[in-house]
Amino acid sequence: MYKVALDVMGGDYAPGEIVYGAYLAAREYHVQVILVGPQDILEKEVELYKNWPENSYCIINASEVVGMSESPSVSFRKKKRSSIRVGLGLVKDKMAEAFVSAGNTGAVMAASTLILGKLPDIERPAIATVLPSKNNPVVMLDVGSNVDCKASYLNQFASMGHCMAQAVLRINNPRVGLLNIGEEVEKGNALTQKAFELIKDQPINFVGNVEGKDILSGAVDVAVCDGFVGNALLKFGEGAADLFFDFFKNESKSSKRSLLGLMLLKKSLKKFKKRFDHEEYGGAPLLGINGVSIVAHGSSSAVAVKNAVRNAIRAVENNMVYRIEGAIHR
Amino acid sequence: MYKVALDVMGGDYAPGEIVYGAYLAAREYHVQVILVGPQDILEKEVELYKNWPENSYCIINASEVVGMSESPSVSFRKKKRSSIRVGLGLVKDKMAEAFVSAGNTGAVMAASTLILGKLPDIERPAIATVLPSKNNPVVMLDVGSNVDCKASYLNQFASMGHCMAQAVLRINNPRVGLLNIGEEVEKGNALTQKAFELIKDQPINFVGNVEGKDILSGAVDVAVCDGFVGNALLKFGEGAADLFFDFFKNESKSSKRSLLGLMLLKKSLKKFKKRFDHEEYGGAPLLGINGVSIVAHGSSSAVAVKNAVRNAIRAVENNMVYRIEGAIHR
Repeated sequence: MYKVALDVMGGDYAPGEIVYGAYLAAREYHVQVILVGPQDILEKEVELYKNWPENSYCIINASEVVGMSESPSVSFRKKKRSSIRVGLGLVKDKMAEAFVSAGNTGAVMAASTLILGKLPDIERPAIATVLPSKNNPVVMLDVGSNVDCKASYLNQFASMGHCMAQAVLRINNPRVGLLNIGEEVEKGNALTQKAFELIKDQPINFVGNVEGKDILSGAVDVAVCDGFVGNALLKFGEGAADLFFDFFKNESKSSKRSLLGLMLLKKSLKKFKKRFDHEEYGGAPLLGINGVSIVAHGSSSAVAVKNAVRNAIRAVENNMVYRIEGAIHR
Repeated sequence: MYKVALDVMGGDYAPGEIVYGAYLAAREYHVQVILVGPQDILEKEVELYKNWPENSYCIINASEVVGMSESPSVSFRKKKRSSIRVGLGLVKDKMAEAFVSAGNTGAVMAASTLILGKLPDIERPAIATVLPSKNNPVVMLDVGSNVDCKASYLNQFASMGHCMAQAVLRINNPRVGLLNIGEEVEKGNALTQKAFELIKDQPINFVGNVEGKDILSGAVDVAVCDGFVGNALLKFGEGAADLFFDFFKNESKSSKRSLLGLMLLKKSLKKFKKRFDHEEYGGAPLLGINGVSIVAHGSSSAVAVKNAVRNAIRAVENNMVYRIEGAIHR
């Protein structure tokens, strides 16, 4: 039975959706979810669900909560009994094999690095996300805090993305691409040109430079970029989806024909949203940390939480951390 | 009557769509289109249209053609009689007020810089594009060749984008934003942090940092970024649109209900494509050049060409170049 510590106080819909997600995970996977948060709140929340499998959860009291916009370093220093610190402490002390939080990403990243430590030789831990594409989910990294990268960081991101795709997405020989503007070898800025030279010598399936549209067409399994570009792309993609749905909503207000069309497409639209929704992918592991720590989206629903627990289990059972360590030492 | 030199041999659908676009422009605007390309081809093409207004076109012979993937520098050196060089020569010699091409962007950029020259004190010319958003078209720059930028370049891009939005989009006091990852002042990488400090002191309507989704929601009129990020975003956006249409096409194959829904939405979908299509915006001026030189998309249709000619006229009548010169000297 896997043991996953879950930050019950992290996320926009905490604690309700988080505990419900824990319940869904407990019903579906061979897991004990360690619910970390204020004892009194948790005792009430778990009572709402009647069919917890035996031993599928336990409660660990953590009296403090880190807000979504609190400073990562200040919250770490001041809130020693926060659900983030207590949860990660359980992983550090081998009482849990993984930690999952939908809370403040920066705070989880900082606390994970400080409590679990970086893996040897890792220059910068990274946050990966899983994007939908026409054919397959695609790991994109970094989408986090590494906004000024050296080529050697991108080279390590390529290794870590490779290991994550193997462990969490269970792709045997993932195709790794370097996000660039143009596919020719000599294309790009100074950073990507140098990174290309490093990555091409790695014993991974490096398919070379790829463009933004190649990510979404599924031409790769892993796309490597610096955190500034990765984050900008993610948000631009969100904006594009908003734009699209907004347009058709307005259309259906002004034309009955369009309204009827939209109604008939309702099922397809739902399917689209489901397929292209981050919730399905259930949160992204922090890569380069000495342990499994997974950050789910702040707006995670119970299903997203359940899927994040699933990803934690996969990362543990497929030895993601060990793989990364090996890849970096190679 | 404005005089616009048009590269008839540039673009995927040259010369047919280009000459047809010239005809449409001649019918709609007070313009003389100077068709630049091989005399014999052009004479045949113009004969296809019977109602050219008086004096609305003339032909200037240019016997050579620059291919879409030719090296900009090599083509410039070797093809002295290319439609690009001849057309820009007309602007240089004051025989035309603007140049428009749907040809090889790199070649037009290089030839424009070499023939017309940069404006004084401009560090790097830029290519802007016009993106759709929920509310208004948005100028984004650079989307071109400046993949490694200094903060001072971004600062000049902000000025140039401001002037282009005024001249071509006819927005009186355009809102200028710096593309970043997070809206707070201290956010971003080293480049955007430095650029923020420079741009905020300019006498323009600087609204601060904006994210990718803010561009598409229409929170700004001008978005400033380096050419690597701009280009990556554009291509990611293309990929997102492809993904969307592809999904619904597949849905309509597997469900009659969805097929019917899509059929009812046909008009709306067309409207969407029209509104969010680069063709409507008709090409982007090269900014920082001592003259008006406009690059339209390689896949430009006649309507796109017509709109590019319209943008050329607007840039001329609203003194875009003069405005930029003034803004940089300020």
